[in-house]
Amino acid sequence: MKTVALLTDFGTSDSFAGVMKAVMLGINPRLHCLDITHEVKPQDIFSAAILLAGSYAYFPKGTVFLVVVDPGVGTSRLPIAIQTRNYFFVGPDNGVLSLAAYDDGVKKIVRLENRKYFLKNISQTFHGRDIFAPVAARLSRGIPFRSLGREVRAITRLRLPALVRQRRALKGEVIYIDRFGNLVTNIDQESFRSFIGSRRFSIRVRNKTIRYVATSYQAVRPGVLLAIFGSFGFLEIAVSEGDASRKLGARKGAAVSIVLA
Amino acid sequence: MKTVALLTDFGTSDSFAGVMKAVMLGINPRLHCLDITHEVKPQDIFSAAILLAGSYAYFPKGTVFLVVVDPGVGTSRLPIAIQTRNYFFVGPDNGVLSLAAYDDGVKKIVRLENRKYFLKNISQTFHGRDIFAPVAARLSRGIPFRSLGREVRAITRLRLPALVRQRRALKGEVIYIDRFGNLVTNIDQESFRSFIGSRRFSIRVRNKTIRYVATSYQAVRPGVLLAIFGSFGFLEIAVSEGDASRKLGARKGAAVSIVLA
Amino acid sequence: MKTVALLTDFGTSDSFAGVMKAVMLGINPRLHCLDITHEVKPQDIFSAAILLAGSYAYFPKGTVFLVVVDPGVGTSRLPIAIQTRNYFFVGPDNGVLSLAAYDDGVKKIVRLENRKYFLKNISQTFHGRDIFAPVAARLSRGIPFRSLGREVRAITRLRLPALVRQRRALKGEVIYIDRFGNLVTNIDQESFRSFIGSRRFSIRVRNKTIRYVATSYQAVRPGVLLAIFGSFGFLEIAVSEGDASRKLGARKGAAVSIVLA
Repeated sequence: MKTVALLTDFGTSDSFAGVMKAVMLGINPRLHCLDITHEVKPQDIFSAAILLAGSYAYFPKGTVFLVVVDPGVGTSRLPIAIQTRNYFFVGPDNGVLSLAAYDDGVKKIVRLENRKYFLKNISQTFHGRDIFAPVAARLSRGIPFRSLGREVRAITRLRLPALVRQRRALKGEVIYIDRFGNLVTNIDQESFRSFIGSRRFSIRVRNKTIRYVATSYQAVRPGVLLAIFGSFGFLEIAVSEGDASRKLGARKGAAVSIVLA
Repeated sequence: MKTVALLTDFGTSDSFAGVMKAVMLGINPRLHCLDITHEVKPQDIFSAAILLAGSYAYFPKGTVFLVVVDPGVGTSRLPIAIQTRNYFFVGPDNGVLSLAAYDDGVKKIVRLENRKYFLKNISQTFHGRDIFAPVAARLSRGIPFRSLGREVRAITRLRLPALVRQRRALKGEVIYIDRFGNLVTNIDQESFRSFIGSRRFSIRVRNKTIRYVATSYQAVRPGVLLAIFGSFGFLEIAVSEGDASRKLGARKGAAVSIVLA
Repeated sequence: MKTVALLTDFGTSDSFAGVMKAVMLGINPRLHCLDITHEVKPQDIFSAAILLAGSYAYFPKGTVFLVVVDPGVGTSRLPIAIQTRNYFFVGPDNGVLSLAAYDDGVKKIVRLENRKYFLKNISQTFHGRDIFAPVAARLSRGIPFRSLGREVRAITRLRLPALVRQRRALKGEVIYIDRFGNLVTNIDQESFRSFIGSRRFSIRVRNKTIRYVATSYQAVRPGVLLAIFGSFGFLEIAVSEGDASRKLGARKGAAVSIVLA
């Protein structure tokens, strides 16, 4: 229980992320800090939740995830910690932890209210530094989870947009766009396969049609559109050696449909 | 004394920061490198000094701060190290260390001239790698501070722009703009409170008027301007879930005034 | 043998780099991960090779370099590891490792085919996570190099563009542009000095003429063009406190010539 993984929208051009790590090192000098990313679009809770859900399972058991995408800092939204089957999650109760935590299996949720685990002075704008980081560092040292505060029964939960199953079409949408411009959809392999069976299909996105699922980005010539199951386990729309988001002018929420021939 | 905190304008798209850490790990394999940021605007000594001053105190005692914002590399500007009450600071004598070091309390300043602590070949353009990083790593291993070189009596000092106190107004300015577009001013809580007392006031910035100091970014509706004391301890002008710098077209140096009603 | 240095084009806004580190920490909890950069332009194998070649020698002996710039992921391009005189290199066989590895001295090259060192499920799009990271982590723990797979005799090799020596001119080109806009050429100090001898010369780039080699960026006034031998050991074209790439509109491949008077 020595790794703390950080996921925030703080960017890396200020000192926010560094200061959180400094606070944690002061509490647990043997801590291993590991950045997931600090470049979530400011206040984009949903993207942060997707990133966390797609990556948490690759971390060593016992990792503490410190997640601060927190537009409600200073309001009544609760600061919480979640103990799951294999991990700990620390952050605001705005849904950002929920996809990953419920995927791993929630065991217990507490509100952070034991002030002896916080910094002495609590600012109005930076609970990442003053509350969440010190609590994460203490969890990494093995303090009893219950000592953080009272149990919480229900938290804000996000959900992936549901797939729409029609007779001749499976309708999904873009839920995340990565740095390469790949369009990650909510169409998972199992839903895709059970819908398609052995039938012929095409994939429709922004008036374009893709006729098969590729097994590598270079299955087509550079610049050509393709569909592939990506590292999140979801169908992705990509352009070989290019940027599908730019090429298609597609944003989050754009429709992607599997249509039977 | 095992943490080295890095603050530079090297960016993260080249190998500069990584190479400095590599050099340090070669000297002290048990070192813990911690990035404050590498994205200071190139050669922006003042912003780097502000970031350092606003974050150093959160680091464990004994941390060595390695600060390389160094437009004068290769000229006669001195490379220096400063021992303060709780920390060590290593960098060029151009003022970048001065706000933090004098805030913590300077005990001794030396010029870096003991070449046995440098890399063998000193380039003309990258003293971060060849001089500052190896010295920081050696300080983290506990070499005697005096062995670095002769004492220096006076170094280049930066100062925050002074507040102007008038009968009916306290005049400050924007000294830093963070990644969220929040405008950090030089108006600290104590100056603000002693000026205001129990009187009514308004805050003026770029022809806009703010009538009170908020306690959270969400005290107003999204898109609305607000003032709040931020994590640096200074008054900040922000936009709820938005970007104040862009909304107001405000840059560093923009006037921010507290005006009595 | 405890440091793994990462060099990728994954960016830092997704979770790719963090997930690779997570996988490695799960295999070797005592690992020290060190980022060279993750901001290589997507699929820019040549720039990554240059960065690696210019930085590897500053790392502790035994460092494992994990390099993933891999447009051919999922195709038949081989995943390989290279043992050199002082280091290990892990990545795709597309040339990205070749400049550094042959510079240090290649001892043995193997293809990565021992699946017991991979993650159990191999995705089609993220061999960095599923193959390269786990192999790098295992090398950092000291597994026998030969156990990775069969020996490979020849790999894809990149080479720097050759200098053209004419009677009155030495013709090079820009091979890399750093974050400051400095234009790094392929003109090394030795070639430069042996060509010039004691003769007078000028440096030509984009219709501009520079008449001498400076010893610091501040040898000229701010905004003025200069030439200097940089930290890579190559001649660089720079602008004092400015951006040479922008000022000259120069890109990679732009001609830079040393012309005798």
